[in-house]
Amino acid sequence: MQAIKANHYTIYFKEEGYLFLNNYITQFKPSAIVILVDTNTQKDCLPILLQHLKTKIKIHTLCIMAGEIHKNITTCNSIWQQLTDLNIDRNALQINLGGGVITDLGGFVAATYKRGIDFINIPTTLLSMVDASVGGKTGVDLGNLKNLIGLFSNPKTVLIDTDYLPTVSKKEMRSGMAEIIKYGITYDRKLLNELIIDNSLKINKLENYIYRSITIKNEVVTKDPKEQNLRKILNFGHTIGHAIESHYLASKQLKTLTHGEAIAIGMIVELYISNKLLNFPKEKLNAIKVSIISLFGKVTLLKEDYPAIIELLKYDKKNVNGKAKFVLMNNLEDYELNCDVSDKLITDGFTFYSI
Amino acid sequence: MQAIKANHYTIYFKEEGYLFLNNYITQFKPSAIVILVDTNTQKDCLPILLQHLKTKIKIHTLCIMAGEIHKNITTCNSIWQQLTDLNIDRNALQINLGGGVITDLGGFVAATYKRGIDFINIPTTLLSMVDASVGGKTGVDLGNLKNLIGLFSNPKTVLIDTDYLPTVSKKEMRSGMAEIIKYGITYDRKLLNELIIDNSLKINKLENYIYRSITIKNEVVTKDPKEQNLRKILNFGHTIGHAIESHYLASKQLKTLTHGEAIAIGMIVELYISNKLLNFPKEKLNAIKVSIISLFGKVTLLKEDYPAIIELLKYDKKNVNGKAKFVLMNNLEDYELNCDVSDKLITDGFTFYSI
Repeated sequence: MQAIKANHYTIYFKEEGYLFLNNYITQFKPSAIVILVDTNTQKDCLPILLQHLKTKIKIHTLCIMAGEIHKNITTCNSIWQQLTDLNIDRNALQINLGGGVITDLGGFVAATYKRGIDFINIPTTLLSMVDASVGGKTGVDLGNLKNLIGLFSNPKTVLIDTDYLPTVSKKEMRSGMAEIIKYGITYDRKLLNELIIDNSLKINKLENYIYRSITIKNEVVTKDPKEQNLRKILNFGHTIGHAIESHYLASKQLKTLTHGEAIAIGMIVELYISNKLLNFPKEKLNAIKVSIISLFGKVTLLKEDYPAIIELLKYDKKNVNGKAKFVLMNNLEDYELNCDVSDKLITDGFTFYSI
Repeated sequence: MQAIKANHYTIYFKEEGYLFLNNYITQFKPSAIVILVDTNTQKDCLPILLQHLKTKIKIHTLCIMAGEIHKNITTCNSIWQQLTDLNIDRNALQINLGGGVITDLGGFVAATYKRGIDFINIPTTLLSMVDASVGGKTGVDLGNLKNLIGLFSNPKTVLIDTDYLPTVSKKEMRSGMAEIIKYGITYDRKLLNELIIDNSLKINKLENYIYRSITIKNEVVTKDPKEQNLRKILNFGHTIGHAIESHYLASKQLKTLTHGEAIAIGMIVELYISNKLLNFPKEKLNAIKVSIISLFGKVTLLKEDYPAIIELLKYDKKNVNGKAKFVLMNNLEDYELNCDVSDKLITDGFTFYSI
């Protein structure tokens, strides 16, 4: 697959990616290579990467516990300390090998260690391939507030290799599908139709979906790198979705949802609101709801949790003067940014999702 | 005094600074203003600033404990949490009012809160005026390793007002003088001669020294923003100085040194090494030593501490392949970058300082 040129770096696929990586190492001669993994990717993905790496430079593997719950400053502190103990200098190269937690947190640690060392991202989950490959967002959570601490910093490259995907659980694969559906709804109705017809997770199809999703995200981010305007469409489904995700993450009773499971609910609720406020076509709303629920199943949203979820909207990073701003859809591929939505309509959206 | 144009922002003095600040607030209408102070500047400097601020926008004051020992991620975490609790959004403005700890740490917190909010620095100590006004360095310490965590991020402006200086202790004033002497040695022999003749701390003279120091630093940083080359001269005296500072900070027995006290020792030791390796003129070495010691007094360096200080050089951020790289002087205004120095010569330098 042809490389995709992002702002400041290029996304390479498979062999071409490893070729770039090995050339980069030969050319820049990093003083050390640090590979950041989690307990899953250390076992499942690191052996694949090491097969491709051709270098005699010292490689250090740093491993963190898998899971969003470890995406915090305490984990960063431990990595900064380990880098220091290993005497890693500014000319080192860090490779982040894992899902979104590893690429987001690893990018943040690399961008802030000694005011920044070079890093390369190798996303290993469907979600991180389609979602974390462009945009330069790095960061960690603060308590249950997602990515509250972070900054924009670009990797030297992103390497996409679907050979890592068989290491990912079905649940995690679905999580990535939610983002692909988002690109379909907001930007590419043809992609959406294919997804609705081909409601499956075949890897040979996925390569194509990944490529198109990255291409779309790259187009959006290139036009608006700092999220002044257009880039906000990437938040479709995420305003509600993040609040649900945070609520389930913080709750002791509720089972934690994957990012995609939460975004899937968020998209249905936000399309419902779009129908009410902007006349988004009802038959499309229903078709998308059926398709999403057939892929993700239905999460039981408890009525008594609605107020807490709505309360969490107050902490959305994109808020202006304490109010959450929504991306809503007039129709497929036709969006409105910065919409205000009443609590009542959100509650109705939860009910619509649940019936 | 005339404003100084730095990369990406301008440094304003006194009235012109407050005029810019008030205009900035009128123009950009931040959703809130957060003033970060420490326990000293809250008492001594905040009232001065508040007199100048003309706005009806809600002002929140966040206060941290004064002292380098609080320049760490734990303090950042507490501020990020307070910003969140106050519902501070991305359109807020943060004003960092204090010495280097406040401007470095405050800049880091602002640059990483929700991926960055605008901030303005108002340095209130002589050291932070001459040292932290240009360059965009932000960061915090990791254990006793100075500024190990951080990034480059520019304030919207830096406002210099010597009216804050009477709030600063003599000891802290001297700390700033060390940096001014550094600019004299590395870049401006006329400035150095004035400092040697006028070995005092009169504020009317200081304004002039501050202005020239900022102008020099700005010239250096503009030519080399990312410290590839020329900017390294700003580290003169700091390779040894930082190691001494870290050692005294970590030690339970030794009294903590100010940054300037440590840099003062560092400059004498590094000039001694310069004399040995590059023939830096002996009479100038001796004159500078006398002048520095008459201003700073002499710190008792214990022989048994030498190895621990030299060991700390291993962790210098500027190291290449685990070796500290020194800035040494052929003569005044005539430097060599990236010099290797033996442990023996460093030990001899400590002895030279001590006799």
